[in-house]
Amino acid sequence: MNYEGTLMLNKKCALEYTLDILEGKWTILILRDLASGVKRFGELRHSLYPISPKTLTDRLRMLEEQRIIMRTIYSEVPLHVEYELTARGRSLEPIFEAMKIWARSQDASLKG
Amino acid sequence: MNYEGTLMLNKKCALEYTLDILEGKWTILILRDLASGVKRFGELRHSLYPISPKTLTDRLRMLEEQRIIMRTIYSEVPLHVEYELTARGRSLEPIFEAMKIWARSQDASLKG
Repeated sequence: MNYEGTLMLNKKCALEYTLDILEGKWTILILRDLASGVKRFGELRHSLYPISPKTLTDRLRMLEEQRIIMRTIYSEVPLHVEYELTARGRSLEPIFEAMKIWARSQDASLKG
Repeated sequence: MNYEGTLMLNKKCALEYTLDILEGKWTILILRDLASGVKRFGELRHSLYPISPKTLTDRLRMLEEQRIIMRTIYSEVPLHVEYELTARGRSLEPIFEAMKIWARSQDASLKG
């Protein structure tokens, strides 16, 4: 097999590329909650109960590294941090819409 | 809050309904491989290397319980089992398509 062939084989498939970012239920629920606007850490902890602070911190850091979300630190007293979707993050919306459409096709009474 | 209100609040959101089924990278990769047709356990183990037999068995059982896939046992010698998507399983395709479209919008060189 030529070099390109090997490269293509080792090349990640499109689905895996997305799954590496959207890995895990909490990741997608964090993005669902940020889709409605800027949130603080505490607000996310509340809306995503019973997520642990560590899991939330890890997922937010991964999403920031993947340029899916942006973190802004306000050095007021007390200091606070806000999270929001980047344009790259907002471009994921069609995936969540497809998930919601499928769910409602299976159970029309589902909310959201 | 009236009973309906409480019911609505406890009602799962559409996204969570889908995530409960599609939980985990392996689940979606199993469905990707079954989208190209009937597969035996061994074929899935090969195409999904390095998935463990236990993880593959557990995910296939969950997907069968969720009526996303169907299992057919052939009592020939040696006995073999085949897995395929149900109509409910195939109706998930728009979600995977949205994931692939997003991935290629981020990296046009991705395959699949």
